[in-house]
Amino acid sequence: MQIEFLGTGAGSPSKQRNVSSLALKLLEERKAIWLFDVGEATQHQILRTTIRPRKIEKIFITHLHGDHIFGLPGLLSSRSFQGGDEPLTIYGPKGIKEYVQVALRVSESRLSYPLKFVELTDDGEIFRDATFTVSAKRLDHKIACFGYRIEEHDHPGELQVEKLQALGVPAGPVYGQLKAGQTVTLPDGRTLDGHDFIGAPQKGRIVTILGDTRKTKAALTLAAHADVLVHESTFAKNEARLAHNYYHSTSAQAAQVAKQAQVGQLLLNHISARYVGKAATQLAYQVREIFPATRVVKDFEEIDIPLK
Amino acid sequence: MQIEFLGTGAGSPSKQRNVSSLALKLLEERKAIWLFDVGEATQHQILRTTIRPRKIEKIFITHLHGDHIFGLPGLLSSRSFQGGDEPLTIYGPKGIKEYVQVALRVSESRLSYPLKFVELTDDGEIFRDATFTVSAKRLDHKIACFGYRIEEHDHPGELQVEKLQALGVPAGPVYGQLKAGQTVTLPDGRTLDGHDFIGAPQKGRIVTILGDTRKTKAALTLAAHADVLVHESTFAKNEARLAHNYYHSTSAQAAQVAKQAQVGQLLLNHISARYVGKAATQLAYQVREIFPATRVVKDFEEIDIPLK
Ligand SMILES: [Zn+2]
Ligand SMILES: [Zn+2]
Repeated sequence: MQIEFLGTGAGSPSKQRNVSSLALKLLEERKAIWLFDVGEATQHQILRTTIRPRKIEKIFITHLHGDHIFGLPGLLSSRSFQGGDEPLTIYGPKGIKEYVQVALRVSESRLSYPLKFVELTDDGEIFRDATFTVSAKRLDHKIACFGYRIEEHDHPGELQVEKLQALGVPAGPVYGQLKAGQTVTLPDGRTLDGHDFIGAPQKGRIVTILGDTRKTKAALTLAAHADVLVHESTFAKNEARLAHNYYHSTSAQAAQVAKQAQVGQLLLNHISARYVGKAATQLAYQVREIFPATRVVKDFEEIDIPLK
Repeated sequence: MQIEFLGTGAGSPSKQRNVSSLALKLLEERKAIWLFDVGEATQHQILRTTIRPRKIEKIFITHLHGDHIFGLPGLLSSRSFQGGDEPLTIYGPKGIKEYVQVALRVSESRLSYPLKFVELTDDGEIFRDATFTVSAKRLDHKIACFGYRIEEHDHPGELQVEKLQALGVPAGPVYGQLKAGQTVTLPDGRTLDGHDFIGAPQKGRIVTILGDTRKTKAALTLAAHADVLVHESTFAKNEARLAHNYYHSTSAQAAQVAKQAQVGQLLLNHISARYVGKAATQLAYQVREIFPATRVVKDFEEIDIPLK
């Protein structure tokens, strides 16, 4: 599991940073890529990575501001042009469906794959399968905006084969029963409880990806104990007033959320073009007294999220 | 007057060529830039040029395929963000207004300037002022597609001041009357015809910019005696069958149009990603026996169009 940042800027593209998009790479976990926001030229950024558009299984849109959605019709068309045929689901605030459908209809684009929309109106779980659960919660932006919490389910413990062999239990169907946690009586009369032969489960990872927002309680719930929190930092530490007026956060506010939610790592994105070079890196240094594991990410930066 | 190519590829962006857009730079003529088509990431390409979005006065869309329009909402938003306040007019086939308006409404983008739409349904003149006339004609593409002919009006001849001075005619209001072509009686009784004192007018330039099309008669009318013809060349010389099936042209068909229309120069764009490097340059070499002044253009190439 990795996050690859495709656009880490705010508002308009600059030479340094494209507008918002990031890829949550779940290639080992589910042979798939999930995108979060698709600003204009996201498909152009993807051309410079190893990501194959046909692998994109889900797209989560935080909100409908142009710098978060204007790359969507082009990406969807190119995925089709490149022969993608697997279904794709787009999650996002009400309006995302109309926007995409009008763009595809007017341009007479016919997609080679089924496209599904899940428009969000309330907080709650929006997806669950055998390995992942995703929930969304409304943030505090000028326009409806959702943050996403992606929870990998715990990996069940492995069967401790060496321990069974040491006890002279021969391999066979009994191994499967023990692994399933059943109690088994062996031909020689011994009774074994599967739970005694299963290692500790491995905790699933939690990734929280927020959209544009003022500091808000919902962010804490979404980010609680996350391995990684991706949080906007449109403004610097001392610009709380500006941040409030424009419905955004400062780097300090992001760090406070990270601290209170006890996350593992805080990644700052949605960096305004007014912070270039060192001034951008400073956004993180300035708040390490609040939350040490903070960094400002760049376009094309890839962050690995290992199992603990 | 120059043409700067912003995207010369077909269908999807590649590392070599972005999707369609070009700028007709009329900075000397009217302190303005006219864009033709706005594929995705046109605003990103513009970041790498000297073009200032606020100078864009008119946008002409040939047709609504995604590779020609998906950059429009982003460009319009950024022009506003950068403080553009001059009106902007968009010309294009029916549907362009709905597409742009839905994108701006859904993203809650409020523009800082008046935006006007002229939706084209018939062939004919679509703009005329003191210095330029633009006419449009329907081409033969799968979707409604227009080609544009931009005619600069002739520059009237200069008043031949030396000739008047040699005749001892003193400077004064009479110079203006003569320049306007009037017949004037001087205080000393002499009668002068303004036409005798005005140099030859300078021919205005003609630029023809076609959208995607099969070979069609309309192209000839639009291109007649143009200084520059910009013509798509999605397919190579020998691919007439493919070109027909996909509603496109070969480089040979473009060259035939250039020859018959007796244009000054043929610029081939809308180059498929299957032709890279030498294979792309070849598209022009292969047809120079039909029309010698042919070249394949690249992204960021600028072509000067001098007065004759
Ligand atoms: Zn926003
Ligand atoms: Zn087309």
